[in-house]
Amino acid sequence: MNDRAARLHLASRMDSIAAFEVMEIQTLARELEAQGRDVVHLEIGEPDFRTPAPIVEAAHRALDSQPMNYTSALGIPALREAIARFYAVRCGVNVDPARIVVTAGSSAALLLAFGVLLDAGDEVLLADPSYPCNRHFVHALGGVPRLVPVGPRTRYQLTADLARDAWTARTRVAMVASPSNPTGTMVPPEEMATLAQLARERGAALIADEIYHGLTYGLDARTAAEAGEDVFVINSFSKYFQMTGWRLGWLLAPASHVREVEKLAQNLYISPATLSQHAALAAFRPETIAILEERRRELGARRDFLVPALQSLGFGVPAVPEGAFYVYADCSGLTDDSFAFAREVLVKAGVAITPGRDFGFAAPERHVRIAYTQPVARLEEAIERVRDFLAAR
Amino acid sequence: MNDRAARLHLASRMDSIAAFEVMEIQTLARELEAQGRDVVHLEIGEPDFRTPAPIVEAAHRALDSQPMNYTSALGIPALREAIARFYAVRCGVNVDPARIVVTAGSSAALLLAFGVLLDAGDEVLLADPSYPCNRHFVHALGGVPRLVPVGPRTRYQLTADLARDAWTARTRVAMVASPSNPTGTMVPPEEMATLAQLARERGAALIADEIYHGLTYGLDARTAAEAGEDVFVINSFSKYFQMTGWRLGWLLAPASHVREVEKLAQNLYISPATLSQHAALAAFRPETIAILEERRRELGARRDFLVPALQSLGFGVPAVPEGAFYVYADCSGLTDDSFAFAREVLVKAGVAITPGRDFGFAAPERHVRIAYTQPVARLEEAIERVRDFLAAR
Repeated sequence: MNDRAARLHLASRMDSIAAFEVMEIQTLARELEAQGRDVVHLEIGEPDFRTPAPIVEAAHRALDSQPMNYTSALGIPALREAIARFYAVRCGVNVDPARIVVTAGSSAALLLAFGVLLDAGDEVLLADPSYPCNRHFVHALGGVPRLVPVGPRTRYQLTADLARDAWTARTRVAMVASPSNPTGTMVPPEEMATLAQLARERGAALIADEIYHGLTYGLDARTAAEAGEDVFVINSFSKYFQMTGWRLGWLLAPASHVREVEKLAQNLYISPATLSQHAALAAFRPETIAILEERRRELGARRDFLVPALQSLGFGVPAVPEGAFYVYADCSGLTDDSFAFAREVLVKAGVAITPGRDFGFAAPERHVRIAYTQPVARLEEAIERVRDFLAAR
Repeated sequence: MNDRAARLHLASRMDSIAAFEVMEIQTLARELEAQGRDVVHLEIGEPDFRTPAPIVEAAHRALDSQPMNYTSALGIPALREAIARFYAVRCGVNVDPARIVVTAGSSAALLLAFGVLLDAGDEVLLADPSYPCNRHFVHALGGVPRLVPVGPRTRYQLTADLARDAWTARTRVAMVASPSNPTGTMVPPEEMATLAQLARERGAALIADEIYHGLTYGLDARTAAEAGEDVFVINSFSKYFQMTGWRLGWLLAPASHVREVEKLAQNLYISPATLSQHAALAAFRPETIAILEERRRELGARRDFLVPALQSLGFGVPAVPEGAFYVYADCSGLTDDSFAFAREVLVKAGVAITPGRDFGFAAPERHVRIAYTQPVARLEEAIERVRDFLAAR
């Protein structure tokens, strides 16, 4: 039986889906911890804060008062309206609630956006480095990710100039992430508008991943929704709202495509989790926002500590991150191989970081991603451990 | 702007994804209700029972005690073990918990199974009629659904003989649903074994949709897991466990494919909803099962009322349903057009039913699906209304 099962076909798309290095690092870290070692976890892309209490309390209330039935595939109307209001209040942009599609995490929003846009062989322009799942969504739907190498010159972001150079007859989507995972850098509003215009002129779509929107330090993020009602904007309750395990996000879609997104969502997801939707209604309340803004200040303080500390160790930080909770550090002054380096830092110094390989093919050996999802005291500990490790080499 | 956005490309896959008729029927029903009409809802594929109290209480406890972080993409170990134990206790089948992948509803389980199995152009054999989303998952991944017309002769199920006749060089998957939506019929264990053997011999996979497993009347359902460790089995917490809005299901995958399913799940979903997973741990407790078994008896009583009542009205029920909560009734003695008939029954008799068109292309005009997701008293009311409507025509 097992012999036969082993002969069962495996889809060729699986060849292009690598396991995440961050998972391997995490597994190795857990093994060290099982041996009694202390590890500072700077590898994980998840906030270290619990979901704010008002959201948890709203979940308790909904459990007692709401039947946990399927909802509309587009999400409950009250939540779609609350998200639209948030765009008005926070970003000063008027958005029709009818354009908001609540999704099972931003993962679902990405699959739906690509799903209504891409035919087999259609190309998607993506920055390299970027969040690896994005290209795997494209693959899964038969599209072709075109990774555009970016670096410090454009603050690790795709620009309209780079997109124009990489554009082909099959390009159907240009995608940016602002703030970006793994670099924490943003696309300036003027550049976003130029990218939207470029896509528009060519009958293509701009998708803006704003999953880390709200988590910016020293400035408030604008939204790509400003750049036109034809821009697809992806957002999430996971990061700023700190609701990772609730698996809730949204897609702001052009009015022309909402009905198609709805049909696809009905078929692929039925509806997002009902309880998460009711809980998320509390995410926009003043008492929740007060908690989130306090945590944002805390994250800003961590960034302000971490960037110069890394530089003092010999890491380069050519584009100081403006948002998210990552530093994409250039480790080429310390190693030729970020992959081996990350493992060595973990095993010898007890600090878990992610090698660049998870994020693409543009000089990953020169980069590591360091997540500041730990308090400053732990970041200090990590810096001292790495300092000792480097001195002892 | 809107003119330009309207010119934005739409993926060709959307041409083959029809909106659900059941949604149109539901919308029309809500309009009638808004006018003060009473409608008996027999169109909806969702149990009318609330999630059992022990599951809701477990959710309250988890909200207070667990951080709502991402989990492993495969699900929390305790839940995977609980599901494996359920196979042992309920079905007498030993299943390695390592083969259980907890998913964001059975929707995610289906996408993952097809995702690791299908290349572009690969064919999937499906019964017609069947649950329409199944063919749309295949489409979304670039596969080709091959709908095999089935009828009363095979109790509306795909058989090994039918599969052999429809098999081509590109057939990669044969899929069955037992009990089936929309017909409520089951695949006998011997037939399931033959189907599994056929797939095995041809290097293909059998996928068994057991989403309605447990909801059978007069007999206990066997599981396709018996038919070999190379069978992909899909299940859900939605129907028997009555947790629709929690969006939780699972995939029992061959050991050879679990790692690939995990990689795809990490990329497409990250993880299933954390709270739903903790709540579902209570789904297997004796006090929950006692509630569910009481509700199963209630559903059985509804079926036992509804089938002869429909026959008394002139509907044919050539294959009496053994499970799920649907009757797929032959209305050809009453109408030539089930689509117009369903609308007329709704508008004139205030009874919402689903025309066959939602489930495929094999004589949909002769069939309607009637869901017994209402108490017997409401079913009686519906039958009397339809009787009066038919008499007055």
